[in-house]
This record gives sequence, structure tokens and C-alpha cells, in this order.
Amino acid sequence: MFTDGDGAARPGVLVEGVVHELDSPLLDAGLEPSLDALLRAGGLGAVEPGEPVAELDQVSLLPPLRKPEKIVCIGLNYRSHAEEQGAEPPQQPTFFAKFRNALAAPGATVPLPRASRKVDYEAEVAFVVADRCKDVPESEALDHVAGYLLFNDLSARDLQFATPQWMPGKVFDGSAPIGPALVTPDEAGPHDAIDLELLLNGERMQQATTADLVHSVPALLSYLSTLMTLEAGDIVATGTPAGVGSLRRPRVWLKPGDEVIVRSRVLGELVTRIGEPR
Amino acid sequence: MFTDGDGAARPGVLVEGVVHELDSPLLDAGLEPSLDALLRAGGLGAVEPGEPVAELDQVSLLPPLRKPEKIVCIGLNYRSHAEEQGAEPPQQPTFFAKFRNALAAPGATVPLPRASRKVDYEAEVAFVVADRCKDVPESEALDHVAGYLLFNDLSARDLQFATPQWMPGKVFDGSAPIGPALVTPDEAGPHDAIDLELLLNGERMQQATTADLVHSVPALLSYLSTLMTLEAGDIVATGTPAGVGSLRRPRVWLKPGDEVIVRSRVLGELVTRIGEPR
Repeated sequence: MFTDGDGAARPGVLVEGVVHELDSPLLDAGLEPSLDALLRAGGLGAVEPGEPVAELDQVSLLPPLRKPEKIVCIGLNYRSHAEEQGAEPPQQPTFFAKFRNALAAPGATVPLPRASRKVDYEAEVAFVVADRCKDVPESEALDHVAGYLLFNDLSARDLQFATPQWMPGKVFDGSAPIGPALVTPDEAGPHDAIDLELLLNGERMQQATTADLVHSVPALLSYLSTLMTLEAGDIVATGTPAGVGSLRRPRVWLKPGDEVIVRSRVLGELVTRIGEPR
Repeated sequence: MFTDGDGAARPGVLVEGVVHELDSPLLDAGLEPSLDALLRAGGLGAVEPGEPVAELDQVSLLPPLRKPEKIVCIGLNYRSHAEEQGAEPPQQPTFFAKFRNALAAPGATVPLPRASRKVDYEAEVAFVVADRCKDVPESEALDHVAGYLLFNDLSARDLQFATPQWMPGKVFDGSAPIGPALVTPDEAGPHDAIDLELLLNGERMQQATTADLVHSVPALLSYLSTLMTLEAGDIVATGTPAGVGSLRRPRVWLKPGDEVIVRSRVLGELVTRIGEPR
């Protein structure tokens, strides 16, 4: 998703670093021009790249999805991250939620929340649900994945651990930068070979691949679908590996002016700048 | 919200037990006929009751809100409920979320989730946010409350306590019956004098008033608004008092055929029937 010269939001197709118009019979028929709407209408398969618009770094990007019904965040899902905090990864996935106010665009400046003094980064791979589904066997789960994107689960640690539930530290405005684009499974390759790393002001702080996930992408989709009906466009962030700032010695907290890059050879680069408290 | 003879969803105005048409200049101008849309358009103040439609128990009700951006559920917010489980109420509110798949209509039959064997009830008073707001002082918080409704926070206890976060037990389809209607503050009276009780197959299991809340309605709205931008139509369930089934001896779990009624002199009656596992 990007904004054109008039500031209107439009979906595009990214082909080798160049944003193209997104051609779709559904858009021609008057569907709201958004990836959320295309997914809900089951129209992602019939999308074609149209005319080239501009290089990726020449357009103003938006979060690829802006109206997900669910933003599910899996916790403690890399053995390395569970170990660094002395926790056993739970046998069944644990999760919390963020709301739409959390979504932030690639390249956005996210102000620190005034309610916290201890804001941390968390590089994650997220998958997006392709269609409404329930009770999906793990063997069929990948049929219900529309694609993948990078997700930075920004976390206010003081608020996260002040109460029994983590959500108070997880929901601030802009706490979920996502992007740069939805990468469809045919382009992303195997679900368990997606690399990711996080650079803070150029220094690598986290590095892993989805091969290290305790609960894999198909296991997560299957499990969540036994708990509730999933919907097209639901975002599931699969957890973060070791290396978060709060568990380093000395601890590392984000400060205004910091640049956080979540990067993947498969999924691209998600840049977030940290702004003054607001 | 109710469905008319054609099965179309329509908002109504409840006046002394009779559902009336909802007259609004915004609906005349083509706004989507839903309470969610009216709230987002800031149009609740200009609503008038039109022609009477039928007695409340003669119409097929829908959840008053069906597209909230947030469903925030406060935990451990009655001293009596914290005490019955040996917990201190947290100094700051703790919370988790449900998603839209959880919403169930007044009178609905909610199937037990197959993933659980220990489903419990939780009677709650919820408030609905009136408009987009952030950093609201407690003294002004009630200006941002659109109204109140009853909320049954159905909870799969085995899933809730299987992992560090409670959400796996909180999200099953139909786990949030709400209604019967949004009661505006002028009709509801003081925020701290809303009674509620829960009857399971006619037997009273819970009873309290919002005077017993650890964190009051204005304190909750103010606090949440320091954490994130709230939106018109957001639902905040304020927690449940003592008397839940999982903390009784012997324990009480919901079973097919049970009838759960959450009732309030101020907010009406929310009936839920429990169905076979699905």
C-alpha cells in the first residue's frame, strides 16, 4: 500500500524493487482500493502488476494492512528468546493482541509513549491469513496463508511487566510497524526458511530464521484456528528471537533519533525511526 | 441492533421495552445502518425514536456493536474476585483482548468450544467509547463514554491458565455475548451505581455493583487513553465480581442446555444459552 501524489491510499504490486499499479477485476468493479478489501473479497489470486509507478524508495508507503480484524502476537516462540529470560517455551502457544492504532508504516517515525521509560524492539516474521477458516489441520494450514511481512513488536517493558497480562506494554500508538509489503508464499519460499535480523543504529541486535520457531507457521495457524474463526487479513506475528534490549547487559532502551531496521532477504526491509515522547 | 423481517440488520431505539425505529439525519443521508457507524460518525446525539416496531422480546436482536476496533477486557477489577483467587488487584489495570468473532447476540446459543472442557461465565458491565480520544484526564473521562451494556466474558479456564497469557482461553467464537442494548449515560445514571447479577439456570451466582470496581469507569477510560488512542465504538469490559464457577467448591462448568442470564436494573437482561460443543 502506498499514497499517490494526491495522498490517496492505493495498493500496488512490488516487482523487483519497483512499485507497479495493481490491476484487479475487483478494483475495476469498484472494490475499495486496499489490500484488506482485496483479501476479504478473495481477490489476491487475480492480481496482476500494471504500469510501473516508481522505485520502492520513491513512494510513501503505508502499512500493507490497515484494517485487520485481529493482530495476534505469539509470545516466547523462539527457544533462544525463552532461554535468555529463563523461561520454558510454553507447550501450547501463548499470545496477546495489538489493536489497529498500533499499526505503523514502513519508514514511519514512532514517538515513544509518554507512559513508558523502557521501550524495546522485537523483530518478528508475521503471516497473514488468506481466508475465513476454522479447525484447519496442520497439513492444510499453508493453504490459508496469504503471505508474510516483517513486524516490529515494539514493547514498553515497564508497562508489560507491571501487571499479570502483557498487553498494557504492547498497545501504544505505532507499536506495530509492519511491511514493507505482503510477500506471497510463492515469492517467500518455504515457511521455515525465512531469515530476519534487526539492526539498531546499524548494529545487529537479533538474527534468526523461522526454522528456529518453537511453533511453526502451519502449527500456529492450525492451533489458532482450533480456538477461533480466523478471517482474511488477520495478522499473526510469530514471536521474536534472542537479543532484545531489555535482556542485554547493559540494557538497551530505544531513544529519540534511533533507527531500527528489521531486515530479511526474503521479506525486505522495515525501517522505523524513534521519535520524541508524545 | 435487530434484524427485520427480511433479515437485514437495523439499529433501533429502545423506549420502555419497545423497540422503535431509529431516526437520524445521518441514516437519511445514506450512512450504513449500524450503531458502529453512527458512533464513528458522531451521530448518537441526534438520534430520535421513530415509529414503534415491536416489544423487545418480539424482535431478533443482534450484538449492539459488531465492528468495534477494540474489545478490551479488564482483569481482576473487583476486590471480591481478586480475593477469591488469592490475588492482589493490580495497582494499575491489567487487560487482555477479545476479537470480533467473540461477539454474540442477546439470546444467542453459544456452542461450547471443542478445545476446552472448562468453560466459565463472567458477568461484567462494559462501557463504550464515544469518540476518538487520547490522554483524557479522569475528570473529563465520562464525556467520552457513549454508554454501557452487559457483557458475559465467557472463559475457557483450562486454556486461560495453560500459558502465561490468558487470551487462549478468552477468544472462542461467541465468547462475548453483549447487550441487550447500548444504554446511554443519561438513562444509565451514575457510572458507579450500575448493578449486575448473573443467574445460571435460575440460580444467582454473582452479584455486585460498579461501586465495587477497583478501577472505576472514568479511571479505566483515562488510564487506557494514556496507553493508546481510543476510538468511537471501542468496548471496555470492566471485570467480573466474585462467584465465578471455577472458584466455587464444587466447581461449576457450563454444559449444553445451560441458560446464563446477566441482569441489571439499569442495563436490562442478557440471556445466553449454551450449546453442544462445536
